[in-house]
Amino acid sequence: VVGEFELLAKVRERLPAAGPRVRLGSGDDAAIVVAEGATATSIDAFVDGVHFRRSTASLEQIGAKALAASLSDLAAMGAEPGEAYVVLGVPADLDEDGCLELLDGIAGIAAETGTTLAGGDVTRAPALTLAMTVVGHAVSADDLVTRGGARPGDALAVTGELGGAAVALLEDRHAEPPLRLDAGRTLAAAGATAMIDLSDGLGGDAGHLAAASGVRLEIEAAALPLTSRLAELPPRSNPLQLAVSGGEDYELLVALPPQRFEAAAAALAPPAGPGLTRIGAVLAGEGVEIRLPGGGILEPRGYDQLRPGPERR
Amino acid sequence: VVGEFELLAKVRERLPAAGPRVRLGSGDDAAIVVAEGATATSIDAFVDGVHFRRSTASLEQIGAKALAASLSDLAAMGAEPGEAYVVLGVPADLDEDGCLELLDGIAGIAAETGTTLAGGDVTRAPALTLAMTVVGHAVSADDLVTRGGARPGDALAVTGELGGAAVALLEDRHAEPPLRLDAGRTLAAAGATAMIDLSDGLGGDAGHLAAASGVRLEIEAAALPLTSRLAELPPRSNPLQLAVSGGEDYELLVALPPQRFEAAAAALAPPAGPGLTRIGAVLAGEGVEIRLPGGGILEPRGYDQLRPGPERR
Repeated sequence: VVGEFELLAKVRERLPAAGPRVRLGSGDDAAIVVAEGATATSIDAFVDGVHFRRSTASLEQIGAKALAASLSDLAAMGAEPGEAYVVLGVPADLDEDGCLELLDGIAGIAAETGTTLAGGDVTRAPALTLAMTVVGHAVSADDLVTRGGARPGDALAVTGELGGAAVALLEDRHAEPPLRLDAGRTLAAAGATAMIDLSDGLGGDAGHLAAASGVRLEIEAAALPLTSRLAELPPRSNPLQLAVSGGEDYELLVALPPQRFEAAAAALAPPAGPGLTRIGAVLAGEGVEIRLPGGGILEPRGYDQLRPGPERR
Repeated sequence: VVGEFELLAKVRERLPAAGPRVRLGSGDDAAIVVAEGATATSIDAFVDGVHFRRSTASLEQIGAKALAASLSDLAAMGAEPGEAYVVLGVPADLDEDGCLELLDGIAGIAAETGTTLAGGDVTRAPALTLAMTVVGHAVSADDLVTRGGARPGDALAVTGELGGAAVALLEDRHAEPPLRLDAGRTLAAAGATAMIDLSDGLGGDAGHLAAASGVRLEIEAAALPLTSRLAELPPRSNPLQLAVSGGEDYELLVALPPQRFEAAAAALAPPAGPGLTRIGAVLAGEGVEIRLPGGGILEPRGYDQLRPGPERR
């Protein structure tokens, strides 16, 4: 059903005009979309107490983060954002105004990224729950970048800065995911062979990319673009460990032929772009090694060992 | 994310082979699908205590019902089922075996309908929660049937039988939604001008179709194809009221030019098809009138007034 979403009508002024592919949006049994080419589709769930806490973020921030984090998967494919479909599970203590605030956050990111909110479903639920399906587009399936194409000899690079989300988490602050959709498409066009967004942490997500590509990744810790905010933490916290193990930075980890790196970095150069930093190399073999300047190896810890409280399954 | 769905690998033997449009299924940031033509996309949420009860249905039945009910929206568009994306919100008292049983139910319906389970996300949640996104396909957007195309003069018809789900509900039995995907496509090809699946009850869903089409629907109560199981109920229950107000029959309500009705009914004739019964007419005006044989008018009650306990928002 896409029909039982009267709430959407109330935030329509904040919604972007439906994209040209959307022939029928919210309000019928299903949305109708005409896509010439290939689609990339991802679904993500966000549950209060697991993925966010209503105590440390406003409802608008929660809605914005849910869509931004979902779109991060499309960024990592190099897809153009198209449509989003939203389930809201609403607990007894959230009234219509609260739902509207949440939808306002979603609508703001939709407008910023040109995403059409094409449908949804609203239901009661014991805890605030969002399920987001996002659909991105590309001219052909070959234009989309999977995790599985990295080859020995490729350079390994990362967009933006790392560690900001871990700092925010430790300080009980809300972290807004950056939107790397343009960067993702730029990297896809620049010849990226494999790409993944950093939702679980560099250590873990590098492991996913290495496994999917059947390669070994060697990362130089000294090369990591750490946020200066890590310096705000007490000295006994391990900033490097945090930046490597902390999730939700939502930057892009990308493999690409080394001769393509300079052009890609120039295309993403600040201040217009997030920056692109070469952090290591792709080798034959398997697994991920993060090499410390002194010669040692950093073992990334799981994100769940850093984050206080409950964690995603 | 489509990656964090290792559970799917364990039911893979029950999964149908990926459809020809699916270039990359579960396991990357997003699934890649190449659709030539138009897509119909719908999202539905199912929460324990709201849409089902674990006390009256097995986990396999719950999974099967969630996908079948979701696909019913595609049936009502006349779309060919394509891909499904599943969020599982798993409470503390549901172990991996339970999740597998649930997925087994989903996989069974996927196999029966030729739907590819192309991705998903698993998270902890305070109550068992499923969010299902289903994507159907058609050669062109014009081949899909909305709720909004009924015209004065059209005949109004319904597939199968009505009232079975209401009987099951009152008897605390599990009702399995019928799969009307083939019927929906047959009706679309036969010239259906508007279509909707009966999830909220004939009265309510006819109202949705009437409003979307800007027409008035007159339904003859005596013509309704009531299930013989209504006779099992105690005499003081009102079988007709139940059949009209009870939801979740998941049959199709369809408007079509009267000269097209006979061919459509022949194409859906039992035993191969579910049957198609003419139940009324489309007129200029607005609203829905269900006329009793004696000349009175039946007021459909809301489904929530029939169903014991909590109800969807």
